[in-house]
Amino acid sequence: MMSSETPTHPKTTKIANTNAPSPFSAWLACYGGCDERYPLTQVRYRCARCGGLLDVRHDTAALATRTGAQWRDLFDQRAGLRAGVPESSGVWSQREWVCPQAADEDIVTLGEGRTPLLPMPTLGQALGLPGLWVKQCGQSHTGSFKDLGMTVLVSMVQGMRARGRHIPAVACASTGDTSAALSAYCARAGIPSLVFLPAGKITDEQLIQPIANFSLTVSLDTDFDGCMKLVAAFCEKHGVYLANSMNPLRMEGQKTVSVEICQQLGWEAPDFLVVPGGNLGNVTAIGKGLRLLRDLGLISRVPRLVVAQAAAAAPLHAAFQDNWRFQAITADKTHASAIRIGDPVNVHKAIDVLREFDGLVGSASEDELSEAAMMGDRHGLYADPHTGVALAVASRLAAEGKIPQSARVVVISTAHGLKFGGFKRAYHLGPPGGAHRNPPISLPATLAAAEEAILPRLGLPG
Amino acid sequence: MMSSETPTHPKTTKIANTNAPSPFSAWLACYGGCDERYPLTQVRYRCARCGGLLDVRHDTAALATRTGAQWRDLFDQRAGLRAGVPESSGVWSQREWVCPQAADEDIVTLGEGRTPLLPMPTLGQALGLPGLWVKQCGQSHTGSFKDLGMTVLVSMVQGMRARGRHIPAVACASTGDTSAALSAYCARAGIPSLVFLPAGKITDEQLIQPIANFSLTVSLDTDFDGCMKLVAAFCEKHGVYLANSMNPLRMEGQKTVSVEICQQLGWEAPDFLVVPGGNLGNVTAIGKGLRLLRDLGLISRVPRLVVAQAAAAAPLHAAFQDNWRFQAITADKTHASAIRIGDPVNVHKAIDVLREFDGLVGSASEDELSEAAMMGDRHGLYADPHTGVALAVASRLAAEGKIPQSARVVVISTAHGLKFGGFKRAYHLGPPGGAHRNPPISLPATLAAAEEAILPRLGLPG
Repeated sequence: MMSSETPTHPKTTKIANTNAPSPFSAWLACYGGCDERYPLTQVRYRCARCGGLLDVRHDTAALATRTGAQWRDLFDQRAGLRAGVPESSGVWSQREWVCPQAADEDIVTLGEGRTPLLPMPTLGQALGLPGLWVKQCGQSHTGSFKDLGMTVLVSMVQGMRARGRHIPAVACASTGDTSAALSAYCARAGIPSLVFLPAGKITDEQLIQPIANFSLTVSLDTDFDGCMKLVAAFCEKHGVYLANSMNPLRMEGQKTVSVEICQQLGWEAPDFLVVPGGNLGNVTAIGKGLRLLRDLGLISRVPRLVVAQAAAAAPLHAAFQDNWRFQAITADKTHASAIRIGDPVNVHKAIDVLREFDGLVGSASEDELSEAAMMGDRHGLYADPHTGVALAVASRLAAEGKIPQSARVVVISTAHGLKFGGFKRAYHLGPPGGAHRNPPISLPATLAAAEEAILPRLGLPG
Repeated sequence: MMSSETPTHPKTTKIANTNAPSPFSAWLACYGGCDERYPLTQVRYRCARCGGLLDVRHDTAALATRTGAQWRDLFDQRAGLRAGVPESSGVWSQREWVCPQAADEDIVTLGEGRTPLLPMPTLGQALGLPGLWVKQCGQSHTGSFKDLGMTVLVSMVQGMRARGRHIPAVACASTGDTSAALSAYCARAGIPSLVFLPAGKITDEQLIQPIANFSLTVSLDTDFDGCMKLVAAFCEKHGVYLANSMNPLRMEGQKTVSVEICQQLGWEAPDFLVVPGGNLGNVTAIGKGLRLLRDLGLISRVPRLVVAQAAAAAPLHAAFQDNWRFQAITADKTHASAIRIGDPVNVHKAIDVLREFDGLVGSASEDELSEAAMMGDRHGLYADPHTGVALAVASRLAAEGKIPQSARVVVISTAHGLKFGGFKRAYHLGPPGGAHRNPPISLPATLAAAEEAILPRLGLPG
């Protein structure tokens, strides 16, 4: 009855040998206004001449020798289900746009990207955003979008080490997602990693990821800023590579999310793209991706960008309301701990992006972000507080008429709710108050007791 | 410089309208030896005539009217990056093999499947398995492979409700992954869900997923078996649909993982497929997928199957050593809590599958599963204890010569390590003992102190 055929897989053979010398190139360029350039493989986070931030620039003339249709076909061809090749990663399936010089053997991947983009019609109705979609970036190896950037950074270090550069370790000061991603990718590559943490200021949940991935985890008797200063001094003195938020390589990976979203929508941009913002690397990266999509002709129109901040840490929102005049603040405590940043390192890059993409900025109170996250869960998400910020801000902009009802709105969910069990437990099991609070009901184990409690709640006859 | 083209996406138009009447069909068949059949839409978990378990059977003659190459092409074509269509789910991209009668509008998906299959060469070397790969099923919406089956079950309920069947809710008794998946998919669909839990016997981590996804969560003054009995009685009496492990629909979704693995390997099977086993639904499902792959000619040879059990709950391992004579046991406590099962409901289906696929069964002690999981983390995974069981058993079989060094071995990781923070904290931060223990180092915040502690550990001059 059954036929038997040779199990060759045409897609694996159709793709050209990606280890051939690349006609594309990228370099580090000063973003501070001077014309200085450095090779991507130089260990450098600021311009040697003017001290400005660095940015990865691509040879867009070389990229434009292929048409938009050719790029779309290439990325679609690579989107199939494969394993064991760099292109099985969502980031590295766009390798010419990310890091064209990276050799296959340098690439350190844990299968990042390719996360679901979910239409959320019922949640959208509840939030006044009937065209709502959510991009699930937290559905990843370490549970946050940071994996997208860290695969690029660690791959570059891997390549430098392979070519004889002495880089004894990679380090960061972080209390959360960055240290988790750094330690996982370094463990994957067999590169020693170092994590500097402020003693007593982080939870056991935040501590355990770098420890499990065998980072040398140093708990310091200081605050987060103290950790940052010390890690920078240590790295400078001992040739350790610093994976901090000034490092421009990570943005190259993070920008792939904007390409992926358009690809998932059949190479169309949504009308609005909403992203939570703290250090503002993510929105900057998304802007970089959108520029390539537009300039290389993969999409015919671009979305408007929305940055969503926690009201406790909303200096960009203040700048937006004051004609983009930015002033650093001291950020207050917020459930959205990863965006508790008063002086974002990428603020000027981000403002440039927002001006270019007709951007909006909004902020959400602690109550608003919690209610939006829990309403998301009620409709099937498992939202982290940062996604709560983005949902709440998008909902408010819709109520204010700034996002029209007809708009297709993609909210970027930056982390998995599994990383924020404490946030959810406090809401549901702590003191009453929230509109979506759902504590368990305790009952004796009898059918009569179960019926008495459950039937009315299900609207069933007793 | 830049070209602008019409952004049409050929892949979205090439795929036929999947809402046309399907030439394929499936039904419920008794697995207990009698010939009884029931429609898939009948609410039934055991045979009405003989009380046997039910199994979903497909019209394989109809499926065989397409060649293996045609099926491969269809599945490859659907594997691209898209959103908002059922086929953007890994499960529903195999819809003809899963639930051919399901209509688009019935399908309740959260983008399940399509998880990375990672080559793990350095971990493999450490475990004596140089050809080791890990399939990351935990990188999913609720953090476990249960999503694969739950999308099918909830979609079927959605379809029945849409066609006027009165199903007021879906219920389960579970302490972990099943209740999380049930509540998320029901929240997605807007179907009420009910979760029965034993009071005081589950952790806050296990409790919070169904609560957040707004299940009516009932905490009962009894043990797990007491919850099972009560939920069954309640469902029977009030027409609530029971999502328990006897429900055969879930296996249809779970079997897609075996198809995905072969697809990711370019339509070749690995030599060995290793899966943790408790209730044994997963290995049974994998066997069902492999049969279709083989019988319809998508692959030319099949893998051997390995079930890995925790030594504390290893009745199948005992049966394997006793010519498949099975005896239920009382399972002891194990870190691998989801497979703490002494009387697996699917044992006879699983034994049939293992006989057919030249199966092996092994078990791992608590120390072995912990060390294997933490070694996995050290090489870049973030392993849950069940994955630890699978890695430890595969390693032992290799040491015993039962898995040759040349073999390509795929270990199925069934949950995300983020669900098992307590397991990792106890190992790394609790009493010393483990070979991979990595507690943090506490230091004063001075460069001198950091250098004294760190430099020797990195092998750097002081």
